[in-house]
Amino acid sequence: MLKFDRELFVQALNEGALGKRGELERVVDEISGKGFSNIFLIGSGGTVAMMYPFEYIFKSYSALPVRAEIAAELLVTDNRQLTSKSVCIFASVTGTTKETVAAAQFCREKGATTIGLVGIPGTPLAEAVDYAITFGREKHAFDVFYLQLQILTTRFLQQNGEFPQYEQFAAELAALPQGMVAAMEEFDARAEAFAIKHRETDYHMLVGAGNLWGNTYSYAMCILEEMQWIKSKSIHAAEFFHGTLELVEKDTSVILFKGEDATRPLVERVERFAENITKELFIIDTKDYALPGISEEFRKLVDLNVNWALTSRISAYLERERNHPLEIRRYYRKMEY
Amino acid sequence: MLKFDRELFVQALNEGALGKRGELERVVDEISGKGFSNIFLIGSGGTVAMMYPFEYIFKSYSALPVRAEIAAELLVTDNRQLTSKSVCIFASVTGTTKETVAAAQFCREKGATTIGLVGIPGTPLAEAVDYAITFGREKHAFDVFYLQLQILTTRFLQQNGEFPQYEQFAAELAALPQGMVAAMEEFDARAEAFAIKHRETDYHMLVGAGNLWGNTYSYAMCILEEMQWIKSKSIHAAEFFHGTLELVEKDTSVILFKGEDATRPLVERVERFAENITKELFIIDTKDYALPGISEEFRKLVDLNVNWALTSRISAYLERERNHPLEIRRYYRKMEY
Repeated sequence: MLKFDRELFVQALNEGALGKRGELERVVDEISGKGFSNIFLIGSGGTVAMMYPFEYIFKSYSALPVRAEIAAELLVTDNRQLTSKSVCIFASVTGTTKETVAAAQFCREKGATTIGLVGIPGTPLAEAVDYAITFGREKHAFDVFYLQLQILTTRFLQQNGEFPQYEQFAAELAALPQGMVAAMEEFDARAEAFAIKHRETDYHMLVGAGNLWGNTYSYAMCILEEMQWIKSKSIHAAEFFHGTLELVEKDTSVILFKGEDATRPLVERVERFAENITKELFIIDTKDYALPGISEEFRKLVDLNVNWALTSRISAYLERERNHPLEIRRYYRKMEY
Repeated sequence: MLKFDRELFVQALNEGALGKRGELERVVDEISGKGFSNIFLIGSGGTVAMMYPFEYIFKSYSALPVRAEIAAELLVTDNRQLTSKSVCIFASVTGTTKETVAAAQFCREKGATTIGLVGIPGTPLAEAVDYAITFGREKHAFDVFYLQLQILTTRFLQQNGEFPQYEQFAAELAALPQGMVAAMEEFDARAEAFAIKHRETDYHMLVGAGNLWGNTYSYAMCILEEMQWIKSKSIHAAEFFHGTLELVEKDTSVILFKGEDATRPLVERVERFAENITKELFIIDTKDYALPGISEEFRKLVDLNVNWALTSRISAYLERERNHPLEIRRYYRKMEY
């Protein structure tokens, strides 16, 4: 596969997430032992989008009040729910994202317990939090974060008596990196064909729901807009019918992120509509991939990791076909504002 | 002003919201007297967007757990926070929005206490809830809802000991309809000029934050996309810098919704960036309007009503300039999906 090192990918997930299982569990157990009143999942851009799936998973499994918050907004709002009894979880690949670091300091000053998932040790975010989980690399950092968050989230659920399947789930996660690679290999030719066909397409509509809504939002904003400078609209599948549908014409590119949680029927409803209107409907369905070693009941939890991995294949080919490296920015971190 | 009847507007707000103050207070007081554990603000499209400001206001003022939810997603998700101790608030202009009606029935079956804000009495939503607040008209229904929600929200806060200024605030609201009309009259020429200039513009970026984020999302989706078939991207001011900024070029239309709550600096940051890049920056700032009778400390609560009213003037002129009636739909309620 273009620009993909299978060994490196599996190694990153094994070392960065699965190998940190004991450390992640100790953090959760210590915090759960002391007790807390709510959990905040805090990030900026891609990292807050990465928190949305876990906010949704908590909602579906737990009576714990959990809320994702944009770091910069949290900083200016006197959020009355944020107290010394709160647990705040942050993530930053570089460990230097300004608002995220400031938000971690802010929450710590309020007396909240802070956990930071950080690519690079010794960086400002790693220094600002009570518990820093670092793994020493930027490559595949989001895949690592997603897997770390799976462990953190389900461990919190288990400690709260809401996920007795934890041991089995955590053990099965060991099979996920290989399953993700196999899924990417299977999807790769479709990703390449999509990028070739849509080399010149200047607008995409992305639709998702439930625990894939964060990925939908993120792929539109952080990949298509930020890294490819292509206009894109992310819209929740349930909201699609309250406005955005009116824009769909016979050649509109509509990308559906189909997952396996309870919101799947909402995405299928968009599919039934879109397949009658546009010939440019592209569906990424995690159900198409086997994931050996993952029990049926857990697929609805890890579909987000698989979806994330699959979409990275599109990015690799868009970069080549559009001759537009994913790293160039016009403005971000290039000017003051 | 084009397609605007000043008397009718003030009458709608007076009868539909201010005249319902006693009824709204009795509902809140009865529910607060019995006790409850959390509040859900539930809608679809424009009506869930209308709930976002109040979710934000609760967050800033209250320790009560309050969450806005998309009706269709709530219906398929087994939300563990939704119990017989929950209060669920719904709104629908026609009283017939399918998912909203189904969600009201669903919440009531769970034993939750349900409140419905409904344009038309005797409709399915009005029948499905424990407390229906109806006002008998569709015209200006959103302006009425916003004002009803101001009363409901601040009354809940007062009953929870978090808004001792309630009596003064509720009394001052009587001056708001006239203040909104004066603001619209002042803004009207700018709205017309914008519509003339952007008659052919095929993409707008809308940016807002805090209690104007819902309006930002809604104007993009429900007006520009649904009613004018113009591509648009709504982006939270804090998230703008994590992707969408890269799309801004010298002729990109960027519309800023500037309000008066704690998130104003986030929008000002976008302003500082955008004014250096595009010549098509259009700012709608509620601070520019006097609002006689409204105390300084309450402006940050009612900026969302004012912003909503101002943007309606743009819609009126876009409709005329683009010769595209706000009522035509290609697909919504015209086909099955």
